[in-house]
Amino acid sequence: MAPLTPRLVVPIDVKKKPWEQKMVDWTGGRVRDDDSADDIKFLDLTITHYLSGPLRIVDAEGVPASPGDLLAVEICNLGPLPGDEWGYTGIFERENGGGFLTDHFPSARKAIWYFEGIYAYSPQIPGVRFPGLTHPGIVGTAPSVELLNIWNERERKLIETGHESLKLCEVLHQRPLANLPTSDNCLLGKIQEGTAEWQKIANEAARTIPGRENGGNCDIKNLSRGSKVYLPVFVEGANLSTGDMHFSQGDGEVSFCGAIEMSGFLELKCEIIRGGMKEYLTPVGPTALHVNPIFEIGPVEPRFSEWLVFEGISVDESGKQHFLDASVAYKRAVLNAIEYLSRFGYSKEQVYLLLSCCPCEGRISGIVDAPNAVATLAIPTAIFDQDIKPKRLGHGPKLRRLPDVLR
Amino acid sequence: MAPLTPRLVVPIDVKKKPWEQKMVDWTGGRVRDDDSADDIKFLDLTITHYLSGPLRIVDAEGVPASPGDLLAVEICNLGPLPGDEWGYTGIFERENGGGFLTDHFPSARKAIWYFEGIYAYSPQIPGVRFPGLTHPGIVGTAPSVELLNIWNERERKLIETGHESLKLCEVLHQRPLANLPTSDNCLLGKIQEGTAEWQKIANEAARTIPGRENGGNCDIKNLSRGSKVYLPVFVEGANLSTGDMHFSQGDGEVSFCGAIEMSGFLELKCEIIRGGMKEYLTPVGPTALHVNPIFEIGPVEPRFSEWLVFEGISVDESGKQHFLDASVAYKRAVLNAIEYLSRFGYSKEQVYLLLSCCPCEGRISGIVDAPNAVATLAIPTAIFDQDIKPKRLGHGPKLRRLPDVLR
Amino acid sequence: MAPLTPRLVVPIDVKKKPWEQKMVDWTGGRVRDDDSADDIKFLDLTITHYLSGPLRIVDAEGVPASPGDLLAVEICNLGPLPGDEWGYTGIFERENGGGFLTDHFPSARKAIWYFEGIYAYSPQIPGVRFPGLTHPGIVGTAPSVELLNIWNERERKLIETGHESLKLCEVLHQRPLANLPTSDNCLLGKIQEGTAEWQKIANEAARTIPGRENGGNCDIKNLSRGSKVYLPVFVEGANLSTGDMHFSQGDGEVSFCGAIEMSGFLELKCEIIRGGMKEYLTPVGPTALHVNPIFEIGPVEPRFSEWLVFEGISVDESGKQHFLDASVAYKRAVLNAIEYLSRFGYSKEQVYLLLSCCPCEGRISGIVDAPNAVATLAIPTAIFDQDIKPKRLGHGPKLRRLPDVLR
Amino acid sequence: MAPLTPRLVVPIDVKKKPWEQKMVDWTGGRVRDDDSADDIKFLDLTITHYLSGPLRIVDAEGVPASPGDLLAVEICNLGPLPGDEWGYTGIFERENGGGFLTDHFPSARKAIWYFEGIYAYSPQIPGVRFPGLTHPGIVGTAPSVELLNIWNERERKLIETGHESLKLCEVLHQRPLANLPTSDNCLLGKIQEGTAEWQKIANEAARTIPGRENGGNCDIKNLSRGSKVYLPVFVEGANLSTGDMHFSQGDGEVSFCGAIEMSGFLELKCEIIRGGMKEYLTPVGPTALHVNPIFEIGPVEPRFSEWLVFEGISVDESGKQHFLDASVAYKRAVLNAIEYLSRFGYSKEQVYLLLSCCPCEGRISGIVDAPNAVATLAIPTAIFDQDIKPKRLGHGPKLRRLPDVLR
Repeated sequence: MAPLTPRLVVPIDVKKKPWEQKMVDWTGGRVRDDDSADDIKFLDLTITHYLSGPLRIVDAEGVPASPGDLLAVEICNLGPLPGDEWGYTGIFERENGGGFLTDHFPSARKAIWYFEGIYAYSPQIPGVRFPGLTHPGIVGTAPSVELLNIWNERERKLIETGHESLKLCEVLHQRPLANLPTSDNCLLGKIQEGTAEWQKIANEAARTIPGRENGGNCDIKNLSRGSKVYLPVFVEGANLSTGDMHFSQGDGEVSFCGAIEMSGFLELKCEIIRGGMKEYLTPVGPTALHVNPIFEIGPVEPRFSEWLVFEGISVDESGKQHFLDASVAYKRAVLNAIEYLSRFGYSKEQVYLLLSCCPCEGRISGIVDAPNAVATLAIPTAIFDQDIKPKRLGHGPKLRRLPDVLR
Repeated sequence: MAPLTPRLVVPIDVKKKPWEQKMVDWTGGRVRDDDSADDIKFLDLTITHYLSGPLRIVDAEGVPASPGDLLAVEICNLGPLPGDEWGYTGIFERENGGGFLTDHFPSARKAIWYFEGIYAYSPQIPGVRFPGLTHPGIVGTAPSVELLNIWNERERKLIETGHESLKLCEVLHQRPLANLPTSDNCLLGKIQEGTAEWQKIANEAARTIPGRENGGNCDIKNLSRGSKVYLPVFVEGANLSTGDMHFSQGDGEVSFCGAIEMSGFLELKCEIIRGGMKEYLTPVGPTALHVNPIFEIGPVEPRFSEWLVFEGISVDESGKQHFLDASVAYKRAVLNAIEYLSRFGYSKEQVYLLLSCCPCEGRISGIVDAPNAVATLAIPTAIFDQDIKPKRLGHGPKLRRLPDVLR
Repeated sequence: MAPLTPRLVVPIDVKKKPWEQKMVDWTGGRVRDDDSADDIKFLDLTITHYLSGPLRIVDAEGVPASPGDLLAVEICNLGPLPGDEWGYTGIFERENGGGFLTDHFPSARKAIWYFEGIYAYSPQIPGVRFPGLTHPGIVGTAPSVELLNIWNERERKLIETGHESLKLCEVLHQRPLANLPTSDNCLLGKIQEGTAEWQKIANEAARTIPGRENGGNCDIKNLSRGSKVYLPVFVEGANLSTGDMHFSQGDGEVSFCGAIEMSGFLELKCEIIRGGMKEYLTPVGPTALHVNPIFEIGPVEPRFSEWLVFEGISVDESGKQHFLDASVAYKRAVLNAIEYLSRFGYSKEQVYLLLSCCPCEGRISGIVDAPNAVATLAIPTAIFDQDIKPKRLGHGPKLRRLPDVLR
Repeated sequence: MAPLTPRLVVPIDVKKKPWEQKMVDWTGGRVRDDDSADDIKFLDLTITHYLSGPLRIVDAEGVPASPGDLLAVEICNLGPLPGDEWGYTGIFERENGGGFLTDHFPSARKAIWYFEGIYAYSPQIPGVRFPGLTHPGIVGTAPSVELLNIWNERERKLIETGHESLKLCEVLHQRPLANLPTSDNCLLGKIQEGTAEWQKIANEAARTIPGRENGGNCDIKNLSRGSKVYLPVFVEGANLSTGDMHFSQGDGEVSFCGAIEMSGFLELKCEIIRGGMKEYLTPVGPTALHVNPIFEIGPVEPRFSEWLVFEGISVDESGKQHFLDASVAYKRAVLNAIEYLSRFGYSKEQVYLLLSCCPCEGRISGIVDAPNAVATLAIPTAIFDQDIKPKRLGHGPKLRRLPDVLR
């Protein structure tokens, strides 16, 4: 019995530097390994994401995946591109995308991370080193026309009506509520720009910013080596796309450009479960298309034994009580963690960047005890080179000299 | 060197049956080990929670904890009361408290769990058995008058203005938005009922339903054996209270009475970190009191290696798009899990009860990719006696006979 | 469906102090919580082990276990006796039992451990604290007459011929090679001492020092809460005995009295697998009785993420090469660990005691690369309050003041 | 701050097939991906091991490592060579090297393993699939002349006197007791064969079969990604060599050629701890050179939650009692496991191969309870596609059709 031979479907020329190739990080290589955050500050976000795909998936007999099937995608192997072992974490400018805490941290920042095998460290955030839980931020199938129309319709409606509804949370809506289809900087692969076909697609194709029913930009940090994702198939061939490689990410990816973004390679194994979408996924919504992927976590995640955990409740920074709002609770948990860690010699921007990309866990701990949702953020203490647990004073936190490389 | 001797501060008479004592489960023993959910259906929720405390905490020299200190509470040991090794999980009636999914599951239900050492199993939910991550649902210090006023004020304001603001989510506000102080069924320990003092306190004391700045009903399932919680001290002596023992709980405790509720014992070790609240906790809010506890997780949590994970995005069941709303995303993830597992022979109510109390993890996976928050619910597959992973059809789920004991 | 109710089969009077009862630690309470090792030094080892049992095991219909069955024993719950939360670790005098390293550490020593919930700490070994993996050192069924004869015969033969064969390892045979039946201090429960029956049994009953085909004193540290052992049944009713409670133990239990020995309670659940011994256990030896138990590890073992590991090869301390001898290799690994840790302010006796009882792992890493077996000893670094990893000098080990309480 | 750039020191031409290169698996590519075990049967073992090195290690200033230093080697990354993702596990013929159980399994066998990312599966051992804990079997420094002489002297003495001493274990000494220096098939890198220098070295250089004081062929399966080994330095420059890449291995590597042997790449990071050998390693033996490496385990080992464990005691297959002999106990534990698993449809040779290479753990559980050492072999149950735990009969093991591909 001979094993199935893996095939190279999106080639990388190993003789070329990564930035000389078409397939690079999600920005197309526009962020550089240097000490300036200007590239982050002025990054045109309409030019996203650079992806690999769409791949037409067929079975061993050559029969393509069909709508109603489930596509089981195993993450066999993945990592940074050899010779390009570095990545970055950024805070977007409030006026250019922002992030979960943009009202607290409105200015662009950038940390560069270098990789030593499984570990990452950053000159901009000294005193931390952690193993990466490397994963693709994006993996998804293509929507059908019907599903695409649902997306465009509901997101358009949010933009039209959202600001009024969201008057409660004026802070959040400084950010764009959604990104509707636009022909600005559309990346459409081999389709010839300027043609009627290109124009038509650009005007109706959903932008890849959010995760949706098809998977997409879910940014789930546990989709690492050995895990398996079951994607619904909406069109013949499934048309699988993937990319946005992350060396590591914290739950929430709070600073938005918050993972350790990198160029990388990815080896996948695909299996078609015929009829599996209907068998396993029940829609939660008005149509049969309102489903979501499911996945299995792999067995080689980094193992930590000690965690320091921060709580948040759904009372916002102004003291206002919200009703069981997990987003507000998580925001407060993250702010609590930032305040706490800033006592150990870090600036708050450093911690914000760190919590975006280190293997921290964001939990919905309580969602029923009205009016307070409780969210928690758990940080593995082993990533620090100092003891960050509270202790009797006199044995307290050492002050670390603030690095001056962070701008 | 002699060790500090633990002291018994809230006695249990081991010669008496648990229900003959004052200290029992959070309801005071009003839910019974039987096949009827009527006790859940008609439970008067104003009679909650039965707690142990308040305990005045002093140091080795007898000096009490002071406002501004941090109280480090280690969970040394805990468990069900010997001879009373059972618990229950309930769904509250929509008109009597409801739960996270009350619009889907409006009727009262109850599952009884029996304990075999670290494991729990239920006749009402056959085919599952899991180790408990036993913890107190409630552990907290007493608020100062100033903090109490803040609570009452902000929760009153939510009730007054919340319904209008929440018109977007009409489903949720079928539940009470908050529970303001009331003298109905106030549990005030040794204070003589009917006196002026009793009446005064009852009229201003916050109800213990939600977690707040003082800890309280946080329902964080990881506060188990060997963990340590750092509580802010707001009044002299800290006035620590605890109770609401859970044999096990899932993140979110979604069915509200959702843990495996039980009577139990608890051994704590307290240490006062003088000045620690100021040293370690920075307020996130308008006053110095807007802080939250932090905690460390213990090293003996049950260990699982395989997880099946369900995603949800912030599009609700009507198809409406919400803006980065983690509560909506988590609701959809839980609904997805319920639909999925109901294909393996369970009723949806059974799965709702199970996901409330088994050691499942609720994550905020993505909170920045507008407009979709992504939340995930991870379920350890080892708790089932059948393989629940998706597989090629023909190898699919076995149908389990529906038990008729669930009413 | 009502659950099976646990029954109390070996009662402990909770009103009495533990030493006023019959069931105590394996020595019958002869080692005290004090600063002198004299009790260890002069302990009469023929008075061992105090056990609970034998228990006759029957099924739900009252039919006893039969030879050829397998007895599945689940460890439901266990722990120190309430009010008696302490234990001890001892080094036996070379002339009184010795230990794995008796040629290096010939004198009696004792460390007292106090328990704080899941943790143990010792005034004699400051700077360490670890969670216990609590287990019974002994759990076993009774042998049949045929099996008993096999034991007595092969151990008698070892004593008669062993010294010559073992001339290679003169060090080891300073210890008794085996302990044949003797009526000295035989503990025979309810059988009247002095009677002919008592004398007959005493003269042929195997001493409980070693583990054998029936389980017995296996001292396997992972037989903790939630684990399950499958014991062969050799006589009707199985006649299960258990005891020798350990709060914690390292692999090998190297100092002999090397676990944290304590008084304790144990809750078991027994199930008879009819015919299971024949179905699952194949003898490795000349008769059908040459089998061994198998077991499953429970899911709540303490979790460590960082380990420092010491190697040993089968070259002994004199420089002599042995052939693939894992015992010699493990001895060298333990000696390497003792030497290393003694640089961090501990005496070698302290480390010897510590490695006997802390949750360290002893591995047979290589057993085929002639002539060197490779054994390893892995120590979780989190049990120390200082960093014990090698580092660049100048950042090296702090000297800890040697405690003077160790005698 | 720019990171140190990794340097390629032992090049692999990625345009060439692995077998066209100098650096391949430990046999130099003499075992093939086919269905015949003849290559294993007739393998000339004097042609081992093919290694990469020796590497002269210098610090950032170019100063080489010196005797008395400690060389900290971090395993940054490693894996199979791209395009050559397969490996093999072999049983050597009794007359050609044998293995731990050569008296039970005297004939050559071979299993081929194919890799899918982190997983391996074999057509010869159907129904199992497991994640690899990939590691180099060999990593070590060069011995000094003095240490080399010690090795040659003690191994020569073993050969001269060992057979008489080992008359107890006649079975074991069918295997060569040691492999003294010989010029047959010496692999001496760039040194010109046939010269006087080549001849001199060949006559005194230790063969690389066993691990020794310098590390070497320790075959410790946990030396994987993110781990760090501290090697003693005996000669200027340390002269580090490494190789013998294993995709996976069980503790003991019992079938000798027992890991999943493969060609692979390895990225190391070296740091010199000046004077560290003297600071951290205390010799256990007659000279200052009798030391052993120490190491730290990395955080990304595969995670299993369920283990089935087999015990062995130091009574051999003939029924003879040995005195605290961990090798005999481990042999019996492995035999018990083989017998057990062979009931689930596998041949004993298949299980022997499997236990050699899957991530099973071999423990020295008890080493003091005379006369029985207790060793255990723990097998993660998740590697099987069937439930291998004992169960009530009628629910027992399914019989798997024996594959006919195993010869």
